[in-house]
Amino acid sequence: MNMTNGPVLLTPGPLTTSARVKAAMQRDWGSRDPAFVRLGLRTFERVAQLAGAGSDHVCVPLQGSGTFAIEAMIGSLVAPHERLLVLVNGAYGRRIVEIARRLARKVDTFEVPETGTHDVDDLARRLRGAEAPDVVAMVHCETTSGLLNPVESIATCVRNAGKRLLVDSMSGFGALPLDMAAMGIEAVAASSNKCLQGVPGVSFVICNRDALEARAGAAPSLVLDLAGQARGFEVDGQWRFTPPTHVVAALAEALDELDEEGGPPARLARYRENCRILVEGFAELGMTPALDPALQAPVIVSFREPGEPWYAFEPFYAALEQRGFAIYAGKMRDVGTFRVGTIGAVDAAIMRAFVGEAAAVVTELKQKLKGRS
Amino acid sequence: MNMTNGPVLLTPGPLTTSARVKAAMQRDWGSRDPAFVRLGLRTFERVAQLAGAGSDHVCVPLQGSGTFAIEAMIGSLVAPHERLLVLVNGAYGRRIVEIARRLARKVDTFEVPETGTHDVDDLARRLRGAEAPDVVAMVHCETTSGLLNPVESIATCVRNAGKRLLVDSMSGFGALPLDMAAMGIEAVAASSNKCLQGVPGVSFVICNRDALEARAGAAPSLVLDLAGQARGFEVDGQWRFTPPTHVVAALAEALDELDEEGGPPARLARYRENCRILVEGFAELGMTPALDPALQAPVIVSFREPGEPWYAFEPFYAALEQRGFAIYAGKMRDVGTFRVGTIGAVDAAIMRAFVGEAAAVVTELKQKLKGRS
Repeated sequence: MNMTNGPVLLTPGPLTTSARVKAAMQRDWGSRDPAFVRLGLRTFERVAQLAGAGSDHVCVPLQGSGTFAIEAMIGSLVAPHERLLVLVNGAYGRRIVEIARRLARKVDTFEVPETGTHDVDDLARRLRGAEAPDVVAMVHCETTSGLLNPVESIATCVRNAGKRLLVDSMSGFGALPLDMAAMGIEAVAASSNKCLQGVPGVSFVICNRDALEARAGAAPSLVLDLAGQARGFEVDGQWRFTPPTHVVAALAEALDELDEEGGPPARLARYRENCRILVEGFAELGMTPALDPALQAPVIVSFREPGEPWYAFEPFYAALEQRGFAIYAGKMRDVGTFRVGTIGAVDAAIMRAFVGEAAAVVTELKQKLKGRS
Repeated sequence: MNMTNGPVLLTPGPLTTSARVKAAMQRDWGSRDPAFVRLGLRTFERVAQLAGAGSDHVCVPLQGSGTFAIEAMIGSLVAPHERLLVLVNGAYGRRIVEIARRLARKVDTFEVPETGTHDVDDLARRLRGAEAPDVVAMVHCETTSGLLNPVESIATCVRNAGKRLLVDSMSGFGALPLDMAAMGIEAVAASSNKCLQGVPGVSFVICNRDALEARAGAAPSLVLDLAGQARGFEVDGQWRFTPPTHVVAALAEALDELDEEGGPPARLARYRENCRILVEGFAELGMTPALDPALQAPVIVSFREPGEPWYAFEPFYAALEQRGFAIYAGKMRDVGTFRVGTIGAVDAAIMRAFVGEAAAVVTELKQKLKGRS
């Protein structure tokens, strides 16, 4: 491990990026220079294609983290008189609720335990009647647990009920299958620093053009107004406000890398293999995922915290970091967990090395405990 | 000129940064890793010190461009029942008005021509009486024209009237003198990619802690809620939402560089010299600034467009870029201008080289015209 470059990040992002993605940040770009304008237009066109966007969709880039894109999506697409139903099974679903409340939107929640998904028949019932919502919002991959929500069957259910669907695809975009046109999704929000393997600082919302234009000028924010941002960007490729030029250049390079890898299916296959090595390796150390394997996305794995005296998160984290790997704290509400990401510029060899170091750390911590007793 | 790195950016930012600032982006940081947490805390403490912030001030970092910080400042510090008076003499003052209107704040404007500043006695009169504003907002350096507004005398006037002052110091922060504690300023918003010579993608608001806490939970946005962001950052140095890690690391490096240069006074002296070389050199080419020299900040200069047949902005821009320099389009309302920035990792030798290339371009364009006639 080259520690001067910091540990390998086994997190849900910001994650480990390739040397060439970082090298793309070695140039300063004029934000209004024609060369940067072309780079930006091309980059977000490519992003839209990854989501199966049709000609009735537009990809609107946004400065800031993924949550900025989520707030922009809710504020720009949900009107104050409309009812929003949020499907919740983790912290990111709850965050959408918090955003909607802060924006004074009429919001209801359909919450299920963090280890399960929403029953589609139950959802269908909730979408009927006078009190039914106009819009449904869901999280594609719940980073809280690492759970993959069934976006396709939920989209079908929402579409059949004649309702609109907004998707937070933050930690799955670029690897997990998503076909906006085929699934009839109104908008998808995501960011550059997850499965796209860019660096953090830019996010985007791909949305239906008509839905966006229907509410032009009505967003309760200037900077998070997607219709305003889209208009500026589509007219001449210019951002209304200073874009994070280096971060956008890194994303462009990351998209080249994704193409060369073989696109989202090849990337997903690599992540699946990373995940398999991790879960099998940790099983041998006596550590098991909190989720049923059928619900696990190969993006981030929540492991139950070992209820053994050798384990506490901080020393476990510190010892792993010393050996060149940064893991992530847990976030599930009812069960103590830590998390390990399987995305980024990380392959099977790196995952095997990580499992080996984790085994050494467990041995080390157990011996330390013995020495003390 | 090393053209593979793109042209030298003579713009109001994003601008040309040093090789070492860009090199600081060659490492991936875990956003919740203790090393990054320490880096972030230290960085924004240093930013606050540059503004003469006292112990009753807090520096709140924010993802996104400077306008994100301006909107966060207005939304987090001005209550819906309060009256805001915006001092306008350019597009950035008008933008504050637009933000305040979008946030449904009670906003009045005190507008003067883009080539002048606000009369302080007139301002004092407007701050009296039942209809007087509670809060005043102003732009420190109006990038529209390059004009330096008299922040000290305006701050004195506002303080004497018992009112609060919010300052957009975007394009001056880190070079132009600003002493928040001494001037009694409630909040200052700025970003990393102007006189601090970092890269774009992070901004900040330095504000009075009591004013911020008085409105905790009341901001009309989750992501732009400065009180919420401050609470998270002060508790454990963690950002509520993914920070632009590489951009923050670049800012930390840029602050080291600023210290080594001799701090804001030394940086201002360099910018003044850049500005002097530019204005004198362009005078010899028959091109003069739109502003009275007494009002000119050494940050960006608006030149009147030559009313001669050889000149049009696009070919002038393209020819200069070919020779390694990117200038900036004009933005003044009543007079045709183009702009040239004097900030960034740019010194007297580079400015002299630029003036030389500009002279060659003028000759070239004049000859082209002759050849055609």
